Amino acid sequence: MLHDGPRSELVLHLPEWLCQFSIAQKRPFDTVEAKMRFVIELAEQNIERQTGGPFGAAIFDADSGRLIAPGVNIVVPSNCSIAHAEMVAIALAQQTIGSYDLGTDNTVCELVTSTEPCAMCLGAIPWSGVRRILCGARGEDACAVGFDEGAKPADWVGALRGRGIEVVQDLCRAEAQAVLRHYLTVGGHIYNAQRGR
Amino acid sequence: MLHDGPRSELVLHLPEWLCQFSIAQKRPFDTVEAKMRFVIELAEQNIERQTGGPFGAAIFDADSGRLIAPGVNIVVPSNCSIAHAEMVAIALAQQTIGSYDLGTDNTVCELVTSTEPCAMCLGAIPWSGVRRILCGARGEDACAVGFDEGAKPADWVGALRGRGIEVVQDLCRAEAQAVLRHYLTVGGHIYNAQRGR
Repeated sequence: MLHDGPRSELVLHLPEWLCQFSIAQKRPFDTVEAKMRFVIELAEQNIERQTGGPFGAAIFDADSGRLIAPGVNIVVPSNCSIAHAEMVAIALAQQTIGSYDLGTDNTVCELVTSTEPCAMCLGAIPWSGVRRILCGARGEDACAVGFDEGAKPADWVGALRGRGIEVVQDLCRAEAQAVLRHYLTVGGHIYNAQRGR
Repeated sequence: MLHDGPRSELVLHLPEWLCQFSIAQKRPFDTVEAKMRFVIELAEQNIERQTGGPFGAAIFDADSGRLIAPGVNIVVPSNCSIAHAEMVAIALAQQTIGSYDLGTDNTVCELVTSTEPCAMCLGAIPWSGVRRILCGARGEDACAVGFDEGAKPADWVGALRGRGIEVVQDLCRAEAQAVLRHYLTVGGHIYNAQRGR
């Protein structure tokens, strides 16, 4: 930055297909399974189109079922280790509503994620203002294909619930696991940092 | 997003003064205290210029002392709950070097932060590739002025060290604490989400 001249903004380019794909979902999502299948499909599309890791997420208005923002993992293509699917969805949703807090008005926002959040995304959830998270695959399913989930508090579900954030686990877990395994079979890059050590 | 038309990127605008201020630091930083005082000054400037919360951070090349990227908390002005100082510094540094991993080549990068990382930033550290973190104020100092640090693992320092990431605490702690207290005296916004609950 200091050698390339002033950099006045941080820019993460989203995959071109992501917005079009999301816009095509015209109807509100009326079940938790429909929301989960959408983010699992985002993960699958991200593999197929080779635009990042096998993770999808989205922020929904829990009451109306309206999609507020989608997210996929773009760590490698965007050269940004924090660009996990959940972080992208949270940040996009906040830009969309124009607030850093998705819980300020009467809207109840929920984060739907194809795999349980890693330590970073878990830490980001209370700051985001979402009131509910719906998880597909377990963290251990991500670990089983080689991803690192980081050091989470032992009772992370209880910690979120203690903050008034509802947690639903194992929603369409088998389908979510299948996407993780698919990533392995196509030779997807397991990109954890610190491999140089 | 889906109502305002396609959004193809996530953009966080950095405060105008941040880059100029950083460029003015021409010499490499030759002590850990010099690095810490720089990020404390970033936090102080962020208060004075009213561009965000009282937190500063930076990524340095640990061997040469070269500043790779600065960061400040821009949660409120950027409408982005993940835009903590550490996250901004990490993401900017990765854009600067063109990799999601600050630990891939022979460079040893360190994250210097005016206050110990919250749960989210803590989770982000292993993914970033930094090999050392230098902390000023303690998490409890941030809590003392009203900020929420989130649910960190009980032995978070040990967890980082177990991953080969060195942790230095209490560097210029009194000076770092003073900035947090200054933020309170000027009526700075304690912006934790979920207040609507």
